[in-house]
Amino acid sequence: MTANEPESPEAEPSGITVLDVDDCTALLGSTPIGRVAFVHRGHLSVFPVNYAWADDTVVFRTITGEKLSVAKEFSDVAFEVDEWDTQNRSGWSVLVRGVAEPVTEWAEVERLEQLDLVPWAREEWRRMWVRIVPSEITGRRVP
Amino acid sequence: MTANEPESPEAEPSGITVLDVDDCTALLGSTPIGRVAFVHRGHLSVFPVNYAWADDTVVFRTITGEKLSVAKEFSDVAFEVDEWDTQNRSGWSVLVRGVAEPVTEWAEVERLEQLDLVPWAREEWRRMWVRIVPSEITGRRVP
Repeated sequence: MTANEPESPEAEPSGITVLDVDDCTALLGSTPIGRVAFVHRGHLSVFPVNYAWADDTVVFRTITGEKLSVAKEFSDVAFEVDEWDTQNRSGWSVLVRGVAEPVTEWAEVERLEQLDLVPWAREEWRRMWVRIVPSEITGRRVP
Repeated sequence: MTANEPESPEAEPSGITVLDVDDCTALLGSTPIGRVAFVHRGHLSVFPVNYAWADDTVVFRTITGEKLSVAKEFSDVAFEVDEWDTQNRSGWSVLVRGVAEPVTEWAEVERLEQLDLVPWAREEWRRMWVRIVPSEITGRRVP
């Protein structure tokens, strides 16, 4: 393996277990905070969001700003969740690659409002819904 | 504020507190797991790493693979750490933007080896050190 080959968990005899998509989607439904990464105006950003896994998509609320701009442009984003046990030095992570889009249909917004996904910053400033439609879902567990 | 303006925490009357650099660097030293985001061959990735904050840089170990390729190319990366209290709906996050580079000087590697930064996957496969030299450090706390 040369340094220029893509990192492939399957190829690592390093104690990492590759998770299948069902494992990954179960984990996506198990934790309230994830991180959305995107490139906007040439800048790479990663921000935590309080999200839900709904209809096989990642949904979260945001205010006007970078995250909403990215959604309005239907940009490629990456979304990551993980959980770690520092005592046992074990954990898992799931990476969703996909496209962010604003949720604009009223009926859909109304349905998402039932999710009980209350943002941690003041709610009235987080009214817009963003959806990430996955094109690829991968995950790993250590050990 | 239009949707195309960059998201500015100072401009959000949303209960978010902007952290200064000293707060951010103290938090960078307080937690063992962060997430490194990068674009490699057109793909946006986010992976958790067991890291240390040393000499005002983020350091972690990796094997040959994407993260090392990114470092060898001195690519722009983003590095994020956060911590959340789901009971109290509070938390913080810090974002480091900078350039990743391989640590190749023997004396420096030897010094980093003293950090007691044992990777969680099998150590013998994580021999290469990568350093992220920050160009920008920002952070937020909620509420």
